[in-house]
Amino acid sequence: MVKAWTKVLEQSGMLKDDTFTRQENTIIQTCVVATCGIAFSGGFGSYLFGMSDTVAAQSSDANSRQRDMNVKNPGLGWMICFLLIVSFIGLCSVVPLRKIMIIDFKLIYPSGTATAHLINSFHTPQGAKLAKQQVRELGRFFSISFLWSFFQWFFTSGDHCGFQSFPVFGLKAYDNMFFFDFSTMYIGVGMICPYLINISLLLGTFLSWGILWPIIETKEGDWYESGLEPGNFHGIQGYRVFTAIALILGDGLYNFLKVLGNTFHKLYNQIQNKKSCAVLPMGPDDKEISYDDQRRKEVFMKDQIPTWLAVVGYLGIAAIATVTLPRIFKPLKWYHVLLIYAFAPALAFCNAYGCGLTDWSLASTYGKLAIFVIGEWAGKMQGGVLAGLAACGVMLNIVSTASDLIQDFKTGYMTLASPRSMFVSQVIGTAMGCVIAPCVFWIYYQAFPDLGVAGSEYPAPTATVFRNLAILGVEGFGSLPKHCLSLCCGFFSVAILINVARDIAPKKWARFIPVPMAIAIPFYMTGSSVAIDMCLGSLILFIWETKNKADSEAFGPAVASGLICGEGLWSVPKSILALAKVSPPICMKFLSKDMNDNVDLFIETITR
Amino acid sequence: MVKAWTKVLEQSGMLKDDTFTRQENTIIQTCVVATCGIAFSGGFGSYLFGMSDTVAAQSSDANSRQRDMNVKNPGLGWMICFLLIVSFIGLCSVVPLRKIMIIDFKLIYPSGTATAHLINSFHTPQGAKLAKQQVRELGRFFSISFLWSFFQWFFTSGDHCGFQSFPVFGLKAYDNMFFFDFSTMYIGVGMICPYLINISLLLGTFLSWGILWPIIETKEGDWYESGLEPGNFHGIQGYRVFTAIALILGDGLYNFLKVLGNTFHKLYNQIQNKKSCAVLPMGPDDKEISYDDQRRKEVFMKDQIPTWLAVVGYLGIAAIATVTLPRIFKPLKWYHVLLIYAFAPALAFCNAYGCGLTDWSLASTYGKLAIFVIGEWAGKMQGGVLAGLAACGVMLNIVSTASDLIQDFKTGYMTLASPRSMFVSQVIGTAMGCVIAPCVFWIYYQAFPDLGVAGSEYPAPTATVFRNLAILGVEGFGSLPKHCLSLCCGFFSVAILINVARDIAPKKWARFIPVPMAIAIPFYMTGSSVAIDMCLGSLILFIWETKNKADSEAFGPAVASGLICGEGLWSVPKSILALAKVSPPICMKFLSKDMNDNVDLFIETITR
Repeated sequence: MVKAWTKVLEQSGMLKDDTFTRQENTIIQTCVVATCGIAFSGGFGSYLFGMSDTVAAQSSDANSRQRDMNVKNPGLGWMICFLLIVSFIGLCSVVPLRKIMIIDFKLIYPSGTATAHLINSFHTPQGAKLAKQQVRELGRFFSISFLWSFFQWFFTSGDHCGFQSFPVFGLKAYDNMFFFDFSTMYIGVGMICPYLINISLLLGTFLSWGILWPIIETKEGDWYESGLEPGNFHGIQGYRVFTAIALILGDGLYNFLKVLGNTFHKLYNQIQNKKSCAVLPMGPDDKEISYDDQRRKEVFMKDQIPTWLAVVGYLGIAAIATVTLPRIFKPLKWYHVLLIYAFAPALAFCNAYGCGLTDWSLASTYGKLAIFVIGEWAGKMQGGVLAGLAACGVMLNIVSTASDLIQDFKTGYMTLASPRSMFVSQVIGTAMGCVIAPCVFWIYYQAFPDLGVAGSEYPAPTATVFRNLAILGVEGFGSLPKHCLSLCCGFFSVAILINVARDIAPKKWARFIPVPMAIAIPFYMTGSSVAIDMCLGSLILFIWETKNKADSEAFGPAVASGLICGEGLWSVPKSILALAKVSPPICMKFLSKDMNDNVDLFIETITR
Repeated sequence: MVKAWTKVLEQSGMLKDDTFTRQENTIIQTCVVATCGIAFSGGFGSYLFGMSDTVAAQSSDANSRQRDMNVKNPGLGWMICFLLIVSFIGLCSVVPLRKIMIIDFKLIYPSGTATAHLINSFHTPQGAKLAKQQVRELGRFFSISFLWSFFQWFFTSGDHCGFQSFPVFGLKAYDNMFFFDFSTMYIGVGMICPYLINISLLLGTFLSWGILWPIIETKEGDWYESGLEPGNFHGIQGYRVFTAIALILGDGLYNFLKVLGNTFHKLYNQIQNKKSCAVLPMGPDDKEISYDDQRRKEVFMKDQIPTWLAVVGYLGIAAIATVTLPRIFKPLKWYHVLLIYAFAPALAFCNAYGCGLTDWSLASTYGKLAIFVIGEWAGKMQGGVLAGLAACGVMLNIVSTASDLIQDFKTGYMTLASPRSMFVSQVIGTAMGCVIAPCVFWIYYQAFPDLGVAGSEYPAPTATVFRNLAILGVEGFGSLPKHCLSLCCGFFSVAILINVARDIAPKKWARFIPVPMAIAIPFYMTGSSVAIDMCLGSLILFIWETKNKADSEAFGPAVASGLICGEGLWSVPKSILALAKVSPPICMKFLSKDMNDNVDLFIETITR
């Protein structure tokens, strides 16, 4: 949704002829992404609305005596205020990260790369034959992907309907979440991501959905209460989320500390030897860099935003937040806010790193971590649930901005857009989002009195999940299901060990060691389909490379970008259809033989 | 099923190295086809079993006083006897037809052509690079088609399940039988058939399922009784079958008479002018004939079976049948048999012609015609039902042999097999079939006392359909639904007019005039999916031709043959699975939104 609007703009004729330059396209895209990003990080369907009385009445603390203390109903004034305070700080943390992620780590950011290819394709130099061919391929696969998504839509009336629930490997495998969901977008992402990432994702899927969860499920009633709802964090969902967090944190923090160490090391060397040209040790050699990349790097580095500005901005906003946030949310204390801001840059780094590797922003995972930690600290009696949800908002905003905007910087890097203009555009976009998003929510909130009530037209299941997690949080780590904490410690250590192993192993072997961040993602996702899509993308690229390496190198990114952007664009008409209450006409359902016999009898009965 | 066994033999290593020559492969194929053909034309699931008491008890004359007179229960002796009498006569009618169909009309016979490509591919001359590439393409698409059919199978547990019921154009269109059934076989057939045939099929589909049947259905209760079963010939099914027969007969008889006229004309000229080289007027010019085709024609014409042998054989067998058949079936009189044998060659011509154009044998349609005509003549009091069914058997055998065996001659033509060896092989195969098929049926009949009872393990719905048609037949043409006879007359005339138009129109326009035979086929089929498959095949070929004509000409037939034979081979393991009672595990079902909501509720109820 976030990127799709921009693509519509870009696709429209107005942008196609040279009304806009590449830079302008990128800037518009950035501004729109920043604006729309707030709609997600604003938490109107999750943490923010989770504070309301409507959701509280449906949560596990519905009858709690402390309920009043843990409720804050939506209000236009405080929502805008809150968003303005928390949204801009992400921008400050992005500034120092962008060089590390894009130039030093050379991370992929598949969506950002795809968008850049799309933008570049509108501005092909007239003379370049190869570029023209690339544009044609991009256009073709863009159309295929769009039309395919459109076609799929017709068959998705109802849950578990359509190609996205296709039990390609059988119903038993589907129940254990092994299936292929025919998403061209993730096939494209898989074609852009390195093989190692895709293999790691698949490994994570097998490890979690193939081995771990089935084993833990056999302990139902022993390790955790039996008969819980699937989303309850006291049950299997608790293992899923927290082990994933442990792996992600282990990997992310290791890399964060490594970068930090290297930076200090470099600074130390600079001061000692006055040498200024030391390259970051983990940065790849610049020898093999292409002309395109040299030029990109030049533009990217030329128009810097000064780091001191970012640091001053960060500290300034943190100070304002520390003072004002506790006034908005009574149970949230100033030291909670300070703690969040102390850890946020590290987690923003982790998220931007993970997103660059896998195209998957885990912002809500970090948000959940904040709920849990701050919620426990504040304690139930002191309104810990509300404090936790507010903390989640602060954290979520920082980390999601970090990944979204660096994704955009990647686009800007590839389209040779000036980083400073992009920064300005992001500031404008964020400001717009902070006002527009709460207003839109407010309109809905006023127009539909039953907004968020289960079974109504607009239920808010995610808000309930967030609130339940906060309720779990105030009960502390002890309330986690049995052995969950030990598993988390284990995975955290494993993530660090894997990284250490990669760093000390000879280069020949190091490139076969999987990436813990990528292993963790399927833990938390509702299935393996993404991993399977992405591996299929890898497989396609591999076969293509084997058959015709030159072709695959020239057209691979264009094809992948087309696939990604086509399905992305489809989300726009899809959302419009959903808003207009046009639901798909058909359900393509998959039933086991026995169930099908029953259903056939039932259908015969009711149609008679 | 018929051809698939041979393909298994051919695929096995034994045939792959040069144990067998091309001719031997073709001969084996022919023998097996002839043997298996009897399993179909023997009518064990249709007319022959329709005579039994089991089926009579389930038919509309269950309580009729004349029931005893119209029943003949299966018996091993008379069944073998009957088959031996009726099966060989088809062979005699094939002999004069083969030259007309294959050399003069140059008919396609898509399945025969595909089989020939497959056989030829096992015997590629070592030096030919193009041939090797063709074999590779054939092999690749063979595998794709086979694996795709295999994959589809998993999702077909139950009726209206799986890709073969995919409502690509929506559920409403599906209810009117417009859908694409993902059959690679018919895509391949469409690639081999001329564009005009595929367009005619589609035209027929629109005309019948799009316009005619919906209009006639609105007359339910007026033109015909309402609330009838879908297969009842007093209702809509009557219009479907008899209008199709009218179109097919009109087209077939016109062409038959044209050939007959031309033959007499030629004979007359020969006698008058003693010129012996007159080419049949409808035979295409020999100027553009390729080297391959010249060579094929040479072999095909060299080793002739004398026409006098065929004529003598035909008359001899007809005489035997006229004497013996009335002894087996009391109500069938000698003049009925004579009438059938008088008309059979014309109908055999029609069927071979239609099958050559469209790959679709309409033998059972001609059988139904015989049921109707002879049944009415014999009359109910005189056991007309039994007479009709027996007449059906005689007719079905002649016309189905004609199409099956000329299909094989087409294979033989393309693999340069000697026609005389093929003829001998067909005789042997037919003799084997006449003994084997009744014996297999007899084993089942003895082993399962409830064979043919509705709801049992082996119901025989088609047998009931045939018997019901015979019951309708004895009531005469007056019992057809209202206006059905006038519609038939109309369509018969239209078929002739279209042919006349094609013959008198300038060549430029004549090639755009559709083929009535092809228009008729969808009338009778259970939907348009085959027409849509075939048009898709045309479309693929058309795009391919536009992009790369040389490639499409070189590889088009190989790709098409691979697609046809791959799905064909899958029918072997599919049948084995069905015999072993392994049913597919999943039903891929398509439900409307409302129905899906109901079904979801139902599933929730029963799984709780």
